[in-house]
Amino acid sequence: MAGPAPISPLAPKSYPDMPAIEGVRFATGAAGIRYRDRTDVLLVLMNEGTQVAGVFTKSKCPSAPVDWCRAKLKNGTARALVVNSGNANAFTGKRGVDSVRFAARLAARATGARESEIFLASTGVIGEPLDAGKFDGVLDKLAAEAKPDAWLDAARAIMTTDTFPKVATATAEIGGVEVTIGGIAKGAGMIAPDMATMLSFVFTDAPIDAPVLQKMLSKSVQNSFNAITIDSDTSTSDTLMLFATGTAEARGAPRIKSAKHHKLANFERALDSVLLDLAQQVVRDGEGARKFVEVQVEGAASDKAAKRIALSIANSPLVKTAIAGEDANWGRIVMAVGKAGEKAKRDRLSIYFGDVRVAHKGLRDPDYDEEKASAVMQQDKVVIRVDLNIGKGRATVWTCDLTKEYVAINGDYRS
Amino acid sequence: MAGPAPISPLAPKSYPDMPAIEGVRFATGAAGIRYRDRTDVLLVLMNEGTQVAGVFTKSKCPSAPVDWCRAKLKNGTARALVVNSGNANAFTGKRGVDSVRFAARLAARATGARESEIFLASTGVIGEPLDAGKFDGVLDKLAAEAKPDAWLDAARAIMTTDTFPKVATATAEIGGVEVTIGGIAKGAGMIAPDMATMLSFVFTDAPIDAPVLQKMLSKSVQNSFNAITIDSDTSTSDTLMLFATGTAEARGAPRIKSAKHHKLANFERALDSVLLDLAQQVVRDGEGARKFVEVQVEGAASDKAAKRIALSIANSPLVKTAIAGEDANWGRIVMAVGKAGEKAKRDRLSIYFGDVRVAHKGLRDPDYDEEKASAVMQQDKVVIRVDLNIGKGRATVWTCDLTKEYVAINGDYRS
Repeated sequence: MAGPAPISPLAPKSYPDMPAIEGVRFATGAAGIRYRDRTDVLLVLMNEGTQVAGVFTKSKCPSAPVDWCRAKLKNGTARALVVNSGNANAFTGKRGVDSVRFAARLAARATGARESEIFLASTGVIGEPLDAGKFDGVLDKLAAEAKPDAWLDAARAIMTTDTFPKVATATAEIGGVEVTIGGIAKGAGMIAPDMATMLSFVFTDAPIDAPVLQKMLSKSVQNSFNAITIDSDTSTSDTLMLFATGTAEARGAPRIKSAKHHKLANFERALDSVLLDLAQQVVRDGEGARKFVEVQVEGAASDKAAKRIALSIANSPLVKTAIAGEDANWGRIVMAVGKAGEKAKRDRLSIYFGDVRVAHKGLRDPDYDEEKASAVMQQDKVVIRVDLNIGKGRATVWTCDLTKEYVAINGDYRS
Repeated sequence: MAGPAPISPLAPKSYPDMPAIEGVRFATGAAGIRYRDRTDVLLVLMNEGTQVAGVFTKSKCPSAPVDWCRAKLKNGTARALVVNSGNANAFTGKRGVDSVRFAARLAARATGARESEIFLASTGVIGEPLDAGKFDGVLDKLAAEAKPDAWLDAARAIMTTDTFPKVATATAEIGGVEVTIGGIAKGAGMIAPDMATMLSFVFTDAPIDAPVLQKMLSKSVQNSFNAITIDSDTSTSDTLMLFATGTAEARGAPRIKSAKHHKLANFERALDSVLLDLAQQVVRDGEGARKFVEVQVEGAASDKAAKRIALSIANSPLVKTAIAGEDANWGRIVMAVGKAGEKAKRDRLSIYFGDVRVAHKGLRDPDYDEEKASAVMQQDKVVIRVDLNIGKGRATVWTCDLTKEYVAINGDYRS
């Protein structure tokens, strides 16, 4: 740890004004889990009856907190969330399980909630036992201090290799009543178990039952957190949770008990926007990233095929190094389309960098202008568009370039 | 192109003595396709009746020569092979197809063979039309000069970003008669369409019919060329061909017409060894590589599952950068096992670097010795072994580390 890294050049220029969510309070503290002189514990308190949904890593070796959350999610309600940075409590065997139980017990005691309504997430080094005793005393203090608007403090306490805190917010209407959504996220490698992992926690005052929340979250994640990649690596700890306090019910918002409710559309759009905003911020903080890259695939056999092709492009080291070199190397896009394994017809393929069509119908565009393509590559944001011209499937994913700094961050510990 | 790159530190220290294969002759020349002052065309002449088999890229956007070879392979016989470096003739549309036809016509004229018995391969830049007219005159000259022992010249003529020529040989017995296998390969990125691609051509005097050759080749490639990865990228041009002149029949070797022939086992082993040797040389010439990495997975649910897990480890940028940094970062191995999507039980997993067990039964090994693990990581060759302890599936794959030089080679064109 050679001091804080400089803030990513792709970081948002300003933070949104984050409004309080009625029924949600935050407190952060320093438990000394790994870092010195910074906060590393976040406690979030939520009103009685808060509904909860979650989406977790697909890893076959998930962390102990992920196992805990998955099990507790079945109850559908939450009262408190405890997140620590510095130690992921992953690959820690029975000690990890014990440590999660102990942390839940401490949190229950500090908050007066039932253990089954405590949710936990950890991020940081894996393979080292987490000493949950470090939470002892700290959580009591935090429970007493919690306040509604400490969003940036909350986002900072869960950072690991992140260079900036990530927050996003939106409002929506349900039955004519305004409800608010606010969320935080962390993540910088996609996502190293060593010093990173994607975590995101989103809160709303909307009165929506847990099964409906779960359905919306599982859908919305497909085009946000499941549509980003930094290095194709998946953490043992990836966690996204959505909490709904339901306090807007007192202001007249109808309680939503069915995912088909016609009053939900506006809320779904707002949720989509918050998740996408947070997900893109994770990409903007990608380790060593200098370019924010949007990959649009259209004309594929299906949406699923389009997404596989888009991810094949976004994960290709050769595409990513070319972008780092500001090289409009469309041959590597052809390569990545070809290796995706999805239907493609060479002689129908068109490729664009920004608005510049570089290849058309399986050939270099006859009007190809190297200078124009180069100008596109020199921007902070590069849009790659591929039209397969064989169907109607489409997908968009986001990634960043692969730079020497990525290799340095992840490989230079010993040098 | 800033002059030749230094030879990979992982290159073999010496070349084997490559014996002639009766019925095979090589000639190389400079057609000026892209490079100056070096050979870029290889012509191989083979006896009448030479049997042929091939395995090609799985890319959905294959090059024009790959399409040609796939089609001609059905005849089962070959008389000549023409390979050029500098231009891959990929993504060149109808002009690419015409160019392949023209090259075959020129080769047929120069060698007296039928066009259907001419095989072609191209490697180099993609998307630029290949001017096959450059072969005109050159092939006639080469046909007149061809000689049996020009292996290294042949291997050099097909290089692109390779830093050393790749050759391998072995002998086997068929029915008490010694036969010889010899082969060449090129490849350095796995495999950029811009300036690389995996090509390999293997020759033998064994009298083996094309369908049997094909069966053996398709099998043998699984544990050799299909068990290596440099950067997870797949070329539009990957080509592996096996030619059998059958001249050993005159020396008493029986003609093999069935893949189940009991006299074939010894030959199969020899073929496996040649392909594995060539494949490992490709890894040893990986762009920017400083470490040769063997990933062994055992105790998996099936061999297929083991291979998927091994490739997940071998393709992980975080694993590869850790190896570049000589960091015994077993947490990243856990991550890569977890993301492979195959059955794994966290609490049964053991991980070794060389002979040092770093994790056991889902925990850091109680006897873990950082110093010993570090010593393993400092070697040129690093063996990573993962025991899933849930079944009998096993697989081994080979890769290299991911260094800043890889990023520089593939991204620094513009800087």
